[in-house]
Amino acid sequence: MRLVRDIRTMQELSQKLRCEGNTIGFVPTMGYFHQGHLSLIRIARQKADVVVVSIFVNPFQFGPKEDFKSYPRDLDRDMKMALKEKVDFIFHPSEQEMYPKNYSTYVEVTELDKYLCGASRPGHFKGVVTVCTKLFNIIRPHFAVFGQKDAQQAFIIKRLVRDLNLNMEIIMGPIIREDDGLAMSSRNEYLNQEQREQAVCLYKSLKLAESLIKDQGERDPQRIINQMEGLINRLASQSEIDYISIVDTQNLKPVDRIQGELLIALAVWIGKARLIDNIILTTPEKADKTDIKE
Amino acid sequence: MRLVRDIRTMQELSQKLRCEGNTIGFVPTMGYFHQGHLSLIRIARQKADVVVVSIFVNPFQFGPKEDFKSYPRDLDRDMKMALKEKVDFIFHPSEQEMYPKNYSTYVEVTELDKYLCGASRPGHFKGVVTVCTKLFNIIRPHFAVFGQKDAQQAFIIKRLVRDLNLNMEIIMGPIIREDDGLAMSSRNEYLNQEQREQAVCLYKSLKLAESLIKDQGERDPQRIINQMEGLINRLASQSEIDYISIVDTQNLKPVDRIQGELLIALAVWIGKARLIDNIILTTPEKADKTDIKE
Repeated sequence: MRLVRDIRTMQELSQKLRCEGNTIGFVPTMGYFHQGHLSLIRIARQKADVVVVSIFVNPFQFGPKEDFKSYPRDLDRDMKMALKEKVDFIFHPSEQEMYPKNYSTYVEVTELDKYLCGASRPGHFKGVVTVCTKLFNIIRPHFAVFGQKDAQQAFIIKRLVRDLNLNMEIIMGPIIREDDGLAMSSRNEYLNQEQREQAVCLYKSLKLAESLIKDQGERDPQRIINQMEGLINRLASQSEIDYISIVDTQNLKPVDRIQGELLIALAVWIGKARLIDNIILTTPEKADKTDIKE
Repeated sequence: MRLVRDIRTMQELSQKLRCEGNTIGFVPTMGYFHQGHLSLIRIARQKADVVVVSIFVNPFQFGPKEDFKSYPRDLDRDMKMALKEKVDFIFHPSEQEMYPKNYSTYVEVTELDKYLCGASRPGHFKGVVTVCTKLFNIIRPHFAVFGQKDAQQAFIIKRLVRDLNLNMEIIMGPIIREDDGLAMSSRNEYLNQEQREQAVCLYKSLKLAESLIKDQGERDPQRIINQMEGLINRLASQSEIDYISIVDTQNLKPVDRIQGELLIALAVWIGKARLIDNIILTTPEKADKTDIKE
């Protein structure tokens, strides 16, 4: 495994590997690996000849009051974990390398960034999309793996790749959870023991929504959201809900009726950790038809 | 010479040519070639193994009241001219191919788009930068040639390439002029004979500015602009000045003193043609020193 810190070297390596006929798989990360990251790396390792993992805590995707400075970092630990997963290259540029003096270019995916985290973190996705465009141009991978945990991000990056003709595939890896269902996240580090116990409310509210739709045939998104909200408030005294949304996976707009492929997503503050989670589910066509007849 | 209309084919061709060790030179155009375009193609032909010329009248870089519909087009004529210049590939995609349904990604270079044409054509450079990012991703050239006639465009694209790590060079080709000095442009087509004669006022005003600076030691930008304005109004009864600006080539901001490398640029309406022209000139260091002593 090789650590690469400068852009020029990484570009030359990728170009050479590509022209030698290697398939390059890429996993962009902000480091501080947990099982979620490792699962994405394993997907890349299975499909690619060469696996590149980037570790870069991107300042532009954090808001002015967000946790850029306190975001956990541990390169040595990450390197050891990556080595075990047979990663070929860690790309770990400095801020100065990525954003030189007079940096002034930004990439934006409109429409898909209006709701969910896009609404509560203005500028966040512009930062994500810009850094991903740069990383894709540097690494020129055949595919990149993104976690479903940041589902809106994955959908936005898919659109970016299509629109800017980036000639690569985006693969969405499943959410990896702790035993009690809490989605793995570097930000879980911020939780004390009581908060950690309460944090399971996100997952439980998603399971409740799934059950309301699949078992009880509920078709009104607002009634589902209300019940999710009620459950979170009962389970977690230290919680503050940022949003709970049910959106169409095609355009990430809130639906007024449960049908088609849906993303149910939420962000909840537990103490100083803003946690997110989601499920993607398809309402069977026949449920809708039955429903129309009623 | 081969005409390519679809993105996938162009990407596969470029990737293959690149991996075979060819240098790819690229000239992006909106077609309707004149000697200005041909001069850029010749620069590419001299430096590259493979020359790709794109012809695409990009709707996104025209304002709602601008001349997108009437912009002159003649693919057959362009193809014949390109063949004579030994172009290898013409890339000529449809609008639908470039901007499919739900297109939603935009690239923007901030700061450099505030003055000059950026001020009078809002959204124009966002359209240019977005389409160039797409074309660069499709063609993956080693270098692209842009004309100095759209100097602000060339400076903005240089910044784009640096900022997004596009791993290519931007070459600026000189302005090609008619015998009387009028900069060649597809929009010169819009001029009737009288307007065509008056159109030389742009070039003459630039020569006046040059002479004021170089021969007479003028160091006040506003006095130079006033004299240029006066000359244009005297020479061209059908003219309407959009802007005359003297900016620093580093940041494209208007200067309050003539020093360093400067871009003197103007846009003037002659009838229904909006014409642009410019010169880049370096004020010799010693002129400044003399000046300071005064």
